[in-house]
Amino acid sequence: MSGIASLAELRTRLANLPEGDDGAASAIAERQSRLTKPQGSLGRLEELVAWLGRWQGRETPRLDDVSVLVFAGNHGVVARGVSAYPVSVTAQMVANFERGGAAINQICKSVGASLRVVSLKLDAPTGDFTQQVAMSEAEFIEAVAAGYDAVPASADLVCLGEMGIGNTTAASALAASLLGGGGERWAGRGTGLDDEGMARKREAIDAGLALHRTHHQDPLAASMIFGGRELAAILGAALAARRYRVPVLLDGFVATAAAAPLARLNPSALDHAQVAHCSAEAGHRGLCAELGMRPILDLDMRLGEGSGAALSVSVLRAALACHLGMATFDEAGVDERG
Amino acid sequence: MSGIASLAELRTRLANLPEGDDGAASAIAERQSRLTKPQGSLGRLEELVAWLGRWQGRETPRLDDVSVLVFAGNHGVVARGVSAYPVSVTAQMVANFERGGAAINQICKSVGASLRVVSLKLDAPTGDFTQQVAMSEAEFIEAVAAGYDAVPASADLVCLGEMGIGNTTAASALAASLLGGGGERWAGRGTGLDDEGMARKREAIDAGLALHRTHHQDPLAASMIFGGRELAAILGAALAARRYRVPVLLDGFVATAAAAPLARLNPSALDHAQVAHCSAEAGHRGLCAELGMRPILDLDMRLGEGSGAALSVSVLRAALACHLGMATFDEAGVDERG
Repeated sequence: MSGIASLAELRTRLANLPEGDDGAASAIAERQSRLTKPQGSLGRLEELVAWLGRWQGRETPRLDDVSVLVFAGNHGVVARGVSAYPVSVTAQMVANFERGGAAINQICKSVGASLRVVSLKLDAPTGDFTQQVAMSEAEFIEAVAAGYDAVPASADLVCLGEMGIGNTTAASALAASLLGGGGERWAGRGTGLDDEGMARKREAIDAGLALHRTHHQDPLAASMIFGGRELAAILGAALAARRYRVPVLLDGFVATAAAAPLARLNPSALDHAQVAHCSAEAGHRGLCAELGMRPILDLDMRLGEGSGAALSVSVLRAALACHLGMATFDEAGVDERG
Repeated sequence: MSGIASLAELRTRLANLPEGDDGAASAIAERQSRLTKPQGSLGRLEELVAWLGRWQGRETPRLDDVSVLVFAGNHGVVARGVSAYPVSVTAQMVANFERGGAAINQICKSVGASLRVVSLKLDAPTGDFTQQVAMSEAEFIEAVAAGYDAVPASADLVCLGEMGIGNTTAASALAASLLGGGGERWAGRGTGLDDEGMARKREAIDAGLALHRTHHQDPLAASMIFGGRELAAILGAALAARRYRVPVLLDGFVATAAAAPLARLNPSALDHAQVAHCSAEAGHRGLCAELGMRPILDLDMRLGEGSGAALSVSVLRAALACHLGMATFDEAGVDERG
């Protein structure tokens, strides 16, 4: 159990994070220099294997237990007309996940990952942040703890994703409060908003920023004020993974925004995480740039559900297969550079 | 067998290419519009499934038989000091492929593809194009036919890659002759050239362009003059795949340059092909832009061997799994947009 009962305890937990294993990363780099390929020619595949080993604390990384966690929540701000879909769709899609009919189910099967969906009070949407805070401190901490507790400490890799009608609006407001700019900078078309919907979305974001301007400067408070329960859970899950030294793949715009308060409080807090896919959602590229994170894939996806994170597991599997299976120059009798 | 015995016959074969199956692509797009996701939210995954179906001529595409073909050749221009590795490495790496010790072996296993390596007279390097043509017409046609004949007409997907010390110099000269610019525009560091090697590489490219300036304007002649046997074989294989309507993944800079003459002769000749990975080799991004092709992956790899092409098979598998396995809005009882 998380044992986190207040914002103050959450802050304490963030101050003293375990570091990665430099020795494991160095051993991996040393082996890579002896494999039958020009130095560095596998590019990010080499970097990703070293990152896996650094956070797993293993010179021989593993991907036997890959866990995809999808958190679902509902958002009061949907009342502002900020989504192309009705709020009923969140629970319907959760049922679809549970029956195996969604994209994330197919991708998990394709890449060999297990899927767990965690619904967070779908029948009690958060407050509309244009009128009030999205969550009380108790509600926020409860959602953070739910995310924290969902992470298996023994996993080799955790992928974090979400489902929640309206949550790109929450993520945009959160990103704006953390990084500056307003609706104009951060709002995107989400599930497919038309121009009028986009105008309402920008207005809702700006109204929320104005209403809460004296309180949202603190990154955790910003998550409480603007974020939904699934965003708070992702924050908690990313923190738990760090404490367990489990590497994390963040899915897209919402998942990255959800974890971003950690990085604002402690610049190295997301060193154990990679952004898996650069979303087609407007704000994501800028958000990744602000966080200094380069997404692994860029395939114009904008679905959420952990789909981009799970998809990139296949890249990690191939990277690891190269690392473990390739011959060295000595073994293969291949001449080194002249 | 290819039945191609001359440049003239190769030209004829290029004039009358089969088109893709619009009906299959439309049926795929129609199904995608009913799957439980916002329209278009799987981005390039949706586009890639439609592309597979269009060229396979199937409303239900398959990836049961994925064939990775790696062609290997040696290059006389290596005498100009244009590679960081000795020419002996081409044959040594082919032996490494055959023993299963290279990156491409591990990636093929990881993504479920079969690998075939085709060595093309490694003990008889092509002519040094700074002094003479790389290949006679007979040699060129023989290499093109070897590539053509290596393509299984029944494959669901073919990945085309290469191995050949010095072949980024050949590919750069070929790209320059097709698209303009010289060594300055097209030369990259290949397997890891230092600055002096880069200067020699640029000089060799420019010397070749000057020597052959009256002949290299024809795209097929340019391939014969500058390209190695493995580049000619990739050209032949890409053409065979088009005639069989087998979709093709081109690996990186060398494979893209090798196929580029087809597109210069017939702008739709590579519609059945995707560039799989944007190489870290300097000229590749520009080459893809000139051809109007957007690579699927961008992971700083610069290895060749078909590694980027094989890696992107995992993206196609996940895309196809989504297409085949997802529930429709009706089946799942999910509300459509409001």
